Amino acid sequence: MEGVIEKKTATNEEIVQALQQLVGDANVIVDEQKKSEYGHDKTEDYQFMPDVVVKPGTPQEVSEVLKLCNRHLIPITPRGAGTGLSGGALPVKNGVVISMERFNKIIEIDELNLQATVEPGVITEVFQNTVKAKNLFYPPDPASRGSCFLGGNLANNSGGPKAVKYGVTRDYVINLEVVLPTGEIIWTAANVLKNSTGYNLTQLMCGSEGTLGIITKIVFKLRGLPQKTVLMMIPFVTNEEACRAIAAIFREGITPSGMEFFEKEAAAKTFAYCEKVLNSPVTTKLVDGMNAYLLCELDGNDEEVLMRDAERVMAVVEKFQCGEVLFADSAAQKEELWKIRKNISPAVNWYTLTKSDDVVVPRANLPKLISGIKEIGKRYGFNTVCFGHLGDGNLHVNILKEDISDARWEKEIPEGIGEIFKLTVSLGGTLSGEHGIGIAKRPYMPIAMSEVNLNLMRGIKKVFDPNGILNPGKIF
Amino acid sequence: MEGVIEKKTATNEEIVQALQQLVGDANVIVDEQKKSEYGHDKTEDYQFMPDVVVKPGTPQEVSEVLKLCNRHLIPITPRGAGTGLSGGALPVKNGVVISMERFNKIIEIDELNLQATVEPGVITEVFQNTVKAKNLFYPPDPASRGSCFLGGNLANNSGGPKAVKYGVTRDYVINLEVVLPTGEIIWTAANVLKNSTGYNLTQLMCGSEGTLGIITKIVFKLRGLPQKTVLMMIPFVTNEEACRAIAAIFREGITPSGMEFFEKEAAAKTFAYCEKVLNSPVTTKLVDGMNAYLLCELDGNDEEVLMRDAERVMAVVEKFQCGEVLFADSAAQKEELWKIRKNISPAVNWYTLTKSDDVVVPRANLPKLISGIKEIGKRYGFNTVCFGHLGDGNLHVNILKEDISDARWEKEIPEGIGEIFKLTVSLGGTLSGEHGIGIAKRPYMPIAMSEVNLNLMRGIKKVFDPNGILNPGKIF
Repeated sequence: MEGVIEKKTATNEEIVQALQQLVGDANVIVDEQKKSEYGHDKTEDYQFMPDVVVKPGTPQEVSEVLKLCNRHLIPITPRGAGTGLSGGALPVKNGVVISMERFNKIIEIDELNLQATVEPGVITEVFQNTVKAKNLFYPPDPASRGSCFLGGNLANNSGGPKAVKYGVTRDYVINLEVVLPTGEIIWTAANVLKNSTGYNLTQLMCGSEGTLGIITKIVFKLRGLPQKTVLMMIPFVTNEEACRAIAAIFREGITPSGMEFFEKEAAAKTFAYCEKVLNSPVTTKLVDGMNAYLLCELDGNDEEVLMRDAERVMAVVEKFQCGEVLFADSAAQKEELWKIRKNISPAVNWYTLTKSDDVVVPRANLPKLISGIKEIGKRYGFNTVCFGHLGDGNLHVNILKEDISDARWEKEIPEGIGEIFKLTVSLGGTLSGEHGIGIAKRPYMPIAMSEVNLNLMRGIKKVFDPNGILNPGKIF
Repeated sequence: MEGVIEKKTATNEEIVQALQQLVGDANVIVDEQKKSEYGHDKTEDYQFMPDVVVKPGTPQEVSEVLKLCNRHLIPITPRGAGTGLSGGALPVKNGVVISMERFNKIIEIDELNLQATVEPGVITEVFQNTVKAKNLFYPPDPASRGSCFLGGNLANNSGGPKAVKYGVTRDYVINLEVVLPTGEIIWTAANVLKNSTGYNLTQLMCGSEGTLGIITKIVFKLRGLPQKTVLMMIPFVTNEEACRAIAAIFREGITPSGMEFFEKEAAAKTFAYCEKVLNSPVTTKLVDGMNAYLLCELDGNDEEVLMRDAERVMAVVEKFQCGEVLFADSAAQKEELWKIRKNISPAVNWYTLTKSDDVVVPRANLPKLISGIKEIGKRYGFNTVCFGHLGDGNLHVNILKEDISDARWEKEIPEGIGEIFKLTVSLGGTLSGEHGIGIAKRPYMPIAMSEVNLNLMRGIKKVFDPNGILNPGKIF
């Protein structure tokens, strides 16, 4: 694909020199090899080449870079840690990639107001641990937390296992410093917990996948850290029974702090991956005749209350076809169970190339969703590994390439994915729960949304980005 | 003010006839007396006359009415129960008032998914009680819950005392059916708990005060109902001490389900109102030498845990200058304490005309905010009664007219209010926590927001409402 910069009146070289003046030579990458590292993320095997990569260090530098690109109509793609699963940070129109990696400071943790101000390039786990040391809690917890950036979490409205009780990234964002594509720097709101002062620009930014502005500061609200957890692994005879049990647990008035699901196949691949790649074998055993597993975590500050709730969960699941429940007693055992869950995605992608979906439905419709997906897989000739945050109805579906030919992979399998999305929408759901649309789901948007909705979104985009320079080709 | 309809080519009579055809004669009001009831809300003594009031019964009728108004460029003002405190539902440009009072059905309570689908004209308390009967919980709880509509709550992003633990209206909205000013009917999202599928139109509607579209169905998420509460009334020597105690309680890791504040003056006026107007005297006594009161509620399912947390609250507040804590033991006593809190606003407005503010700051800045407001009052010569949801930093400030002349009330007092807003913003806060901007706070918007922010909002407005017919003259 040809670089867009070359199509413009300004030459590549002039632009590069201007960028070097703005952010310093050391923060402008033109080397082919180094640039190419900014051309892929964790989405399939996608690769797009930026013309140039810039790494600004201040909001003012971001502003100057954006003004330059806006003046010359150069596509500009904001990028966090590159852990995205929908291709949202890929420079599909080439141009400039603006990497936020230098925005890596935790600016303030305000213990009196339970708020924190951070830059978008802070790694999620670093932030989690920093607030934890002050006995505070930042619940969003994407599986990639060890490497992903908070800014990327925000752009995609990431969730993770705790979302079922504590909500997703957007539920913790109260104010944002944003550089608009035209270069102005704004704050979207105020550092307050309640706000009825004009349109909610903060929430508009959350999940907008870097198409409306570049976030340069985030104000999060925090919670007190729950002191204790209980973790159970519950095996079920079928996926459907596991899903039915989930709805029943919530109906009982219990709100687990984690309600994760995986198929036997997901566990088997993860066990192999942990042994062969991570060199850290799983000691937990799967149960004969059991095909689906739930990880159910309860948290709180009172051990007795937790045990009582755990017994209530047991009483509910026993009404379904389940095997013996494994209680994780020690920290080490809890860690091992979470290790299984968190390595499913890398394990499956180590096993074969995948196309990964992230559908979400009302919780009670999960049994129909999963059985429907398996049926579609049969019809189109692909295998799937299903897992995810089923407490909030969010299912990750990894479609396995295995021995499917490249031609079928690119042509027929996407039709099968379309079928999965149609089924999801017919069950009251939608395309993405936490991975975003990016380029991977973009062709399917009309399945979830009317042209009127899409036109509203396009209109909003134009208000923020009249020249369409910022992250073009994404979402719609 | 002259009716806008008369300025247009279409005559009043033709429009009225067309409206009668669309929604039926019985649902079109032209009678002056009856119309005038739709010209005021609970904001000061504001009154604006609609040219005509229509009461559609279906989304399709709303759509037809909007199309008609859009074709003829007639201002149209959506209205719920008329309990607003910022004039957001008033027809300041005359034209058509579209009353949503016939949209009063609870369509479905989905117990399996803990969701409910309702029409916007359902009274908040009716909805609360309906879900409560199924052991479910809808936490937003504005003081006007006995008469206000859910649609109005949503338009203003209402909060109430439970917001401090459970969040505000927007935190419970997952999907909306909306009629756009151009007549299209859309759903903003899907009935799911997590959603990263395009821009968040749902959250854009929340708090947009009826300027972007007319909501015709709301899908809420619900929670399990906490079974037990503990309520304490804690007297303090000064407002500042009370505010400091609040920040300290949260810092201790305790999250009360209510953290309400009122000054002695607020209580005194409420006691008089309850005795003289409601004919239901308050039996609780105020404490000598104490000038500020906190109502601190804890909720949960375990009595022991609640009592333990209550003791922790006691241990914190004892470090401040406080009097003896009143524990409300019985349901009747709890009800009485809430009666005091919930009647403050009617009591103060019975005592004198007021201008009511609804500022919000980071919690720890409340002491500076309240002392600053009193100082501004002295400087401008007005008294204030302060109360509100201080757990989330949201202070209601009622400015009392008392013997202030009409001329000063309209000219000088608004300057003093401007000072209050400037102080609020300087403390990291903003204009409205839950009442919205409407017309009452509109002149002050530039204090809280840059022209860039306002222009983004104006741009969004234009995307939804190209002719500017829907609720003109509000917010910005």
